[in-house]
Amino acid sequence: MTGTTNTTTTSLNARTTALDRAHVFHSWSAQAAVKPLVIAGGLGCRVWDHDGRTYLDFSSQLVNVNIGHQHPKVVKAITDQAALLTTISPATANLARGEAARRIVARAPEGFNRVFFTNGGADAIENAIRLARLHTGRDKILSTYRSYHGNTGAAIVATGDWRRVPNEYARGHVHFFGPFLYRSEFWATTPEQECERALQHLEHVIVGEGSASIAAVLLETIPGTAGVMLPPPGYLPGVRELCDRYGIMLILDEVMCGFGRTGRWFAFEGYGVVPDLITFAKGVNSGYVPTGGVLISDPIAADFDETVFPGGLTYSGHPLAMASIVGALDAMSAEGIVQNAARIGRDVLGPALAALQAKHAIIGEVRGEGVFWALDLVADPVTRQPVGAAVMARIKAELLGRGLLPFLIDNRIHVVPPCVVTNEEVAEGIAIIDEVLALDLLA
Amino acid sequence: MTGTTNTTTTSLNARTTALDRAHVFHSWSAQAAVKPLVIAGGLGCRVWDHDGRTYLDFSSQLVNVNIGHQHPKVVKAITDQAALLTTISPATANLARGEAARRIVARAPEGFNRVFFTNGGADAIENAIRLARLHTGRDKILSTYRSYHGNTGAAIVATGDWRRVPNEYARGHVHFFGPFLYRSEFWATTPEQECERALQHLEHVIVGEGSASIAAVLLETIPGTAGVMLPPPGYLPGVRELCDRYGIMLILDEVMCGFGRTGRWFAFEGYGVVPDLITFAKGVNSGYVPTGGVLISDPIAADFDETVFPGGLTYSGHPLAMASIVGALDAMSAEGIVQNAARIGRDVLGPALAALQAKHAIIGEVRGEGVFWALDLVADPVTRQPVGAAVMARIKAELLGRGLLPFLIDNRIHVVPPCVVTNEEVAEGIAIIDEVLALDLLA
Ligand SMILES: Cc1ncc(COP(=O)(O)O)c(C=O)c1O
Ligand SMILES: Cc1ncc(COP(=O)(O)O)c(C=O)c1O
Repeated sequence: MTGTTNTTTTSLNARTTALDRAHVFHSWSAQAAVKPLVIAGGLGCRVWDHDGRTYLDFSSQLVNVNIGHQHPKVVKAITDQAALLTTISPATANLARGEAARRIVARAPEGFNRVFFTNGGADAIENAIRLARLHTGRDKILSTYRSYHGNTGAAIVATGDWRRVPNEYARGHVHFFGPFLYRSEFWATTPEQECERALQHLEHVIVGEGSASIAAVLLETIPGTAGVMLPPPGYLPGVRELCDRYGIMLILDEVMCGFGRTGRWFAFEGYGVVPDLITFAKGVNSGYVPTGGVLISDPIAADFDETVFPGGLTYSGHPLAMASIVGALDAMSAEGIVQNAARIGRDVLGPALAALQAKHAIIGEVRGEGVFWALDLVADPVTRQPVGAAVMARIKAELLGRGLLPFLIDNRIHVVPPCVVTNEEVAEGIAIIDEVLALDLLA
Repeated sequence: MTGTTNTTTTSLNARTTALDRAHVFHSWSAQAAVKPLVIAGGLGCRVWDHDGRTYLDFSSQLVNVNIGHQHPKVVKAITDQAALLTTISPATANLARGEAARRIVARAPEGFNRVFFTNGGADAIENAIRLARLHTGRDKILSTYRSYHGNTGAAIVATGDWRRVPNEYARGHVHFFGPFLYRSEFWATTPEQECERALQHLEHVIVGEGSASIAAVLLETIPGTAGVMLPPPGYLPGVRELCDRYGIMLILDEVMCGFGRTGRWFAFEGYGVVPDLITFAKGVNSGYVPTGGVLISDPIAADFDETVFPGGLTYSGHPLAMASIVGALDAMSAEGIVQNAARIGRDVLGPALAALQAKHAIIGEVRGEGVFWALDLVADPVTRQPVGAAVMARIKAELLGRGLLPFLIDNRIHVVPPCVVTNEEVAEGIAIIDEVLALDLLA
């Protein structure tokens, strides 16, 4: 990050690192181990530091920059709104807020007409859980071990991964196993069997917990952080059916998979299911301004026509965030950005990843659709033993060294570029991954 | 909101209301009862709708617009950053983030060098609670009944007011009574007695709960939503002393009272106390972009040098939010905005409110400092019986009708204009309140 001859820009990189190390406390990290990459700017699928070192962004940051970096129409929407009114209380009516809500509702299934806005994904989950509990008069929330739902009180306990464990202070949360054939909890060998057994397992948990105590089943439509695990055909309709049978609300968390990532506005459109509550954030405005929310189906919304909804936050429906939603959704529609994600997944990225797998034994499985993919790396293709942390650290360094900004979790490379990624950018990124996987990584 | 002859602007107000009623789900409300004021723009202490109807903002919205509406330097900071890079992952280093953290640390007491950024106040509280629990290895959080700390899992259960009750899903929260002489829980008649008895009460709760089970005492330095209840001299140092004696962390919630509201950067500077963790949001950037955070004292931060901190969120340290912090804090310093709040409180607003009280028997007590005041309205000055909801609804309508945007809670008018409020604006607002309080409200 240092050593170029350009004093001004070198010192900006150095200053950024120094300030960061002195004063910024980083999430999910031991602070002494944080060696942050300096990022100063970006455009489309590229970001760069102050020295002009650029990276091809195959992470979309935290899988949020669906529209790419610095889309001019979204930047303009923010700048225009900033000139009018940046912030106003949620109790008011504001045109940007209404326009944003209208655009979200227009992309939702029939019967979803109200949006409660939050600042991000975690508080969208908090409010969806609140709505489900109040609607049903029941307490328990069922979610999967292989999930991430956010870092606040209820969201982190709904989360299934290790991050829940030091934060387990909320009651009423129960975890179960979702379908995942490659590492089946159910000893299944076919997608049909995995689906059937996973549904049977869920029903056993529902009955075991007492179905009348369960407010909601909360699922990422496609678990993202846990490994882009596409549900087998029939699973989500089966969950819907169980929910209906037992009077349980179905919350689908579309924070990561929604708004274009799968090549559809909502991931669940591809799985023949309609939930009762939809949580969103990230892709709705590509994170240009912090925002998120809950799409509320009519029967649940109607509960609060005469009864006070006991939730709120200072920046609910923040005008600057709302303007960025309007700008992002309009640009995504006008420019066919969701369609591009579908096309890239089907015709370019999917086939390219399949070809990589055919070439590299380290790739145990390729999973995904649209611009939402994971390479599950294994030390042994037969036992499916995940590769270890040292291998992943090496892969990270090698990818970054070649100018690819990757999204790595556990033993996986998540291939999650912006929805605007081009054929050429896919080819460039795949060539880098190809080169790195060809190294003697398991030695 | 309708009925003017200007078709274009009338229709924008109408369109805003129609979209809001159709699609926006409002916080803390029964939806059918929501009659939102349309707000389209603002500047300084004024906001207006699309018809050009203006209001003098004596609410600072949700007590967040400390720098006033649409301060040109903050708008420019946002616009400039929007042109560079709106969003980037928290795992990176970004100059705006480092500069924001540096400016916050520079205003904090010695021994606070790290900032963990969040999207707002509630998640600042969540992370402060997390840090206190992990630092002490203890579970319980003590907070007061007269408090508001946010709407997410732990924050809402830490909250003491009615909003906690339908949301009580987190364990480890205990509530006690803070000092409030005007409606003393302790049968006290002087500030000294209230202070002494409140400290004794807190110690009884600490001992009763088992001091070794208590991670933190969480207090708003000055409880805001609950009624701008200035702590009596000696109370906060007494709490600090109890915390030290029992190995308990002191979290001061400066979300509402921090960054200028009291005429100081932090409210606690006026009370001879230094906490272990400081939560902030609102005033740090006047809410121009959603943000908040925790200022972490060195001993707590050091715990996470080698140990992973188990908390995080997608938009932690969001560049656009960080740029707005830099812009807001620089402008506040350059323009003496915090000093203005102190001067207004001491020389203009405080005396004016005292004069109002002398004139109107309905004002039971005037409390506050800086631009942070409450008028406690009573039906009877002897019994101190709060006025009822119908009286407050009438007051709200009368104030709005005269062009004053008020902040009303329970039986109180909170007088909380931006820190930039001028003598003339104070006079204008006070005249309106004077006129309304002179109406036959209790008839
Ligand atoms: C599926 C899902 N839900 C919720 C969240 C939490 O969102 P946030 O980080 O904005 O709180 C995330 C974040 O990655 C997510 O992937
Ligand atoms: C003292 C205090 N803490 C926390 C919060 C929660 O902040 P937010 O609404 O941004 O979540 C508030 C909001 O009013 C507050 O006044």
